[in-house]
Amino acid sequence: MSFEPYRSPSTGRLVRAVLFDTFGTVVDWRTGVAREVAAFAAAHGVALDAHAFADRWRALYQPAMEAIRSGQRGFTKLDTLHRENLDEALRHHGINPELVSRESLEELNRSWHRLPAWPDSVEGLATIRRHYIVGPLSNGNTSLLLEMARNAGLPWDVIIGSDMTRTYKPLPQAYLRTAEFLDLEPGEVMLAAAHNTDLRAARESGLATAFVARPTEYGPGQVADLAPEGDWDLVASSVTELADRLVA
Amino acid sequence: MSFEPYRSPSTGRLVRAVLFDTFGTVVDWRTGVAREVAAFAAAHGVALDAHAFADRWRALYQPAMEAIRSGQRGFTKLDTLHRENLDEALRHHGINPELVSRESLEELNRSWHRLPAWPDSVEGLATIRRHYIVGPLSNGNTSLLLEMARNAGLPWDVIIGSDMTRTYKPLPQAYLRTAEFLDLEPGEVMLAAAHNTDLRAARESGLATAFVARPTEYGPGQVADLAPEGDWDLVASSVTELADRLVA
Repeated sequence: MSFEPYRSPSTGRLVRAVLFDTFGTVVDWRTGVAREVAAFAAAHGVALDAHAFADRWRALYQPAMEAIRSGQRGFTKLDTLHRENLDEALRHHGINPELVSRESLEELNRSWHRLPAWPDSVEGLATIRRHYIVGPLSNGNTSLLLEMARNAGLPWDVIIGSDMTRTYKPLPQAYLRTAEFLDLEPGEVMLAAAHNTDLRAARESGLATAFVARPTEYGPGQVADLAPEGDWDLVASSVTELADRLVA
Repeated sequence: MSFEPYRSPSTGRLVRAVLFDTFGTVVDWRTGVAREVAAFAAAHGVALDAHAFADRWRALYQPAMEAIRSGQRGFTKLDTLHRENLDEALRHHGINPELVSRESLEELNRSWHRLPAWPDSVEGLATIRRHYIVGPLSNGNTSLLLEMARNAGLPWDVIIGSDMTRTYKPLPQAYLRTAEFLDLEPGEVMLAAAHNTDLRAARESGLATAFVARPTEYGPGQVADLAPEGDWDLVASSVTELADRLVA
């Protein structure tokens, strides 16, 4: 085969694996969570702004991981953090989680396992996979990412959850341990992400980088991550466009 | 969907994931390794019985892991054990590994990443995957299993290598930590294997069990594992037959 893998200008290495941030980059968490929140609200006869609820729930994500990244709390998987944050989001919206059945809350918490892919994700991943290892490099735990992949048809070769690296991005070990499981040098691994912070940390750990713009991840009023804020190796407006750049 | 997953009589649970021993059960290591050994011998102008060499190399597998299981040695991934054992197998066949280039030895060691699937494996796994999570439950490390999957077209949903559980079968933690990564009860996980020892340990850890007969894994003179030696939940002569039992 005469295919020549993409060589990262920043790492100088041929890229062997293209790994993706998932929430926001590959899947549309806001739409997916809001849809299930709306169904939950209807079933329980409560009035809720489902998108505002999704935003609130998501806003608790970084602080919850920060407690673990800082060492204040031992490693705890994302499903558990999401479940704790759900209680807090409910209270914020005037709902006492103790009055809701445990099963309903567990079910709503699994909305993070059922997020819809952005329209270009599956096709783009399938194309990239023909020539590179593809997988998530996400703060999700393995079972969450696995169920998400089965539901959305994401054609991962391998899933290395944060419960396998036992750390959360953007700490260096999240990137480095993932490369190690793949038996690759950091520079042979590309992170594709819609978030400049994630790409900055990946580059500091020696990975190749690709920015995939997702300007409506946070809804129509999004203000951050509308454009690349570094000289990332590649910049694309979709996973299919990234595939064109990597496979051309 | 009206599909009802298989309920294991021994665990009493519906099976959610069907995980496979790989070497011998899904792939034909003896044929695959012997083929590459023969090519290596031809390239280096040495005379070798390639199948005897493959058998010798494989015979060093359990003792190497035993040093780790017993605690005598820290966890070391299978690629490294295979590489050490290759030197020993070469010496046993009268070849001084120090006279062979490091690249040639590394390349031959990767023959374990390129093992051919048994003729029924890919089709059977694809069928099972329609209704169950499928993955390896192997002593192979993640990168080995990943490359094997890409080469042989094994449609795994997820790969949990022994470098993720950091232990080797048949120690209980190999089975239990795998179920934990999947967020499943042990009884919801089925091990499919051609080896009674593996199934015995899986059952002791509470997993469902399926015997898949591979009577020529060790060549035409195979004497062990020709038949099930326990009342395993299912017994099949191929992965496609196992699929019929699980999906019917």
